[in-house]
Amino acid sequence: MTEAVVLVATMVAKPGQEELVERTLTAALPKVHAEPGCLRYALHRKAGTTGVFLMIEKWASPEALGAHMKGAVMREVGAALARALAGAPDMVFLDPIPAGDPDAGAV
Amino acid sequence: MTEAVVLVATMVAKPGQEELVERTLTAALPKVHAEPGCLRYALHRKAGTTGVFLMIEKWASPEALGAHMKGAVMREVGAALARALAGAPDMVFLDPIPAGDPDAGAV
Repeated sequence: MTEAVVLVATMVAKPGQEELVERTLTAALPKVHAEPGCLRYALHRKAGTTGVFLMIEKWASPEALGAHMKGAVMREVGAALARALAGAPDMVFLDPIPAGDPDAGAV
Repeated sequence: MTEAVVLVATMVAKPGQEELVERTLTAALPKVHAEPGCLRYALHRKAGTTGVFLMIEKWASPEALGAHMKGAVMREVGAALARALAGAPDMVFLDPIPAGDPDAGAV
């Protein structure tokens, strides 16, 4: 098995910047999906909030994630969001514990 | 489109109870996967911890989630974990923002 990487990145928009953040992240999705090794890159808003966004990500390898983080798309997104987020994205890395159905049991 | 429900449930084991929690949750996975409307029920450990578990869940409808929460499997799990968790599971509900590839762009 390759060493896939799963993480959840949480981004909090500054008040008034919610739409800019949502628009920027949404526009980036198709480009990120086209990056090598992107298995999942799924945007969500925390229910009951306007400006708390969670990206659930899965990359085929640490190298694929590294290339994504240093790539052109993230550079653009980072520049666009530099003044729009309340802080740096909070990245929580997750170790999968597979059991049961291999599809339902993994992101 | 049906109204799928996405959530992340975080469970923190009391010190010394990490293995019991992992064993109980892992044993429940196949049973939960067989419940009606379970689209995703994926267990993870927060990297760098021994006892912080995150379940990334997707249910076909609020009704399916409700039946799961009240069902026999969760009753058993709840009983097994009642004294093993540091507190009630923290459930964060997420509103998907779909864009790009429909598979990579959703959990």
